[in-house]
Amino acid sequence: MEIQIAVSKIKKYATSDSGDTVEVIERPQGGLSVVMADGQSSGRGAKSISNLVVRKVISLLAEGVRDGAAARAASDSLFTERSGKVSSTLNIISVDNATKTLVITRNNPAPVLLAYGENIKLLDEKSIPVGLYRETRPVISEISLEKNLTAVVFTDGLIHAGSRTGEKIDIVACLKCFLEEEDPSPQMIADNLIDHAIKLDLGRPVDDISVVVVRVTKHRGDQIRRMSVRLPLPPI
Amino acid sequence: MEIQIAVSKIKKYATSDSGDTVEVIERPQGGLSVVMADGQSSGRGAKSISNLVVRKVISLLAEGVRDGAAARAASDSLFTERSGKVSSTLNIISVDNATKTLVITRNNPAPVLLAYGENIKLLDEKSIPVGLYRETRPVISEISLEKNLTAVVFTDGLIHAGSRTGEKIDIVACLKCFLEEEDPSPQMIADNLIDHAIKLDLGRPVDDISVVVVRVTKHRGDQIRRMSVRLPLPPI
Repeated sequence: MEIQIAVSKIKKYATSDSGDTVEVIERPQGGLSVVMADGQSSGRGAKSISNLVVRKVISLLAEGVRDGAAARAASDSLFTERSGKVSSTLNIISVDNATKTLVITRNNPAPVLLAYGENIKLLDEKSIPVGLYRETRPVISEISLEKNLTAVVFTDGLIHAGSRTGEKIDIVACLKCFLEEEDPSPQMIADNLIDHAIKLDLGRPVDDISVVVVRVTKHRGDQIRRMSVRLPLPPI
Repeated sequence: MEIQIAVSKIKKYATSDSGDTVEVIERPQGGLSVVMADGQSSGRGAKSISNLVVRKVISLLAEGVRDGAAARAASDSLFTERSGKVSSTLNIISVDNATKTLVITRNNPAPVLLAYGENIKLLDEKSIPVGLYRETRPVISEISLEKNLTAVVFTDGLIHAGSRTGEKIDIVACLKCFLEEEDPSPQMIADNLIDHAIKLDLGRPVDDISVVVVRVTKHRGDQIRRMSVRLPLPPI
């Protein structure tokens, strides 16, 4: 089997910083974790919140702390730092080599889409952001890694796209459509979702949007691990 | 302008873990850093060393600490933890949005290749790994970001490829050849270098190999940040 992960991010129109932070980190027992946070409001303030949350989580994961415990620690940490006045959503998507599972941790009202082949299931159990209350718990789903499993995780910018014009993106229908293609790449899925959202926002995103797509595919060929990043720089 | 980064990694033949660790992290002032370490020896022991070094560096970079200071801290930290008995190479490659520079930090005898268009320069000033001595300093090069700048950074597995058969990879000649192509992608460069090394090792790498390629290109089109990862899983 092979794991393919794609992350696509765009910031709200005319803001200095995206309030979303997404990082990918290696797990000490093997595998990878993607950590995504969306700090309250937007711009620099939101960035510093989401950065704090993601930093806390990745440093704990790197020490071997389990995902659920890392999410709780991040919540307590933000609660303490900002006296419960500031929230952030948090998702951790882990490919755990030790247990051969995909572990999805949600502190985010936005659902996660999980597809077995073309069958899409919504992980939408009630879940609240971190930082507002003591004892905030994440909702955790653990799924066996199997071929053609796809997980799509996003910040609420994707849901709110089109709110200016009253249109809305039907994420489930879009994903269904992409999955009907022959072996869709995660980057294609993430890019198409974000492109669709930007179109609904008439080219000016009303919120930061981040989309993470994880796919388990057949292993093809070599044992090389690869990572690639594309980062457009603001004009000087 | 747009930054494109590619990382390709393969582990030594018949070892459980790669002793190399490579992580990419966002910089708090904007931009990205790639942190690469190669722990002494190979397998699990080497992995825990390189992991310790990279973890230390990324947690400091995330707090806004400068690259040179983070490298020194990682050296002191490994020196203290292992009483100066264990070494690790360390490279930090940062795209710094604040200063519009590429900052290359070396604690690694292996050189870094820097190409302006097709002109290749070697950054090969004497540099020693972290962890063995007090007061180990990195060698730092700061280069203005400009179009067609390419940096190629690697662990010594790439240099030692072919040692079983007495052959050797001419990395500079290879890179020259790739750069003659029309707009070569960093992933193509990284993959071709690693493929070449694996061939010289007759399909069984004699050491862990990691290659990082950073390229500054013309900006094309959208403002979406993208990251993608491919992770082959060991058979169950």
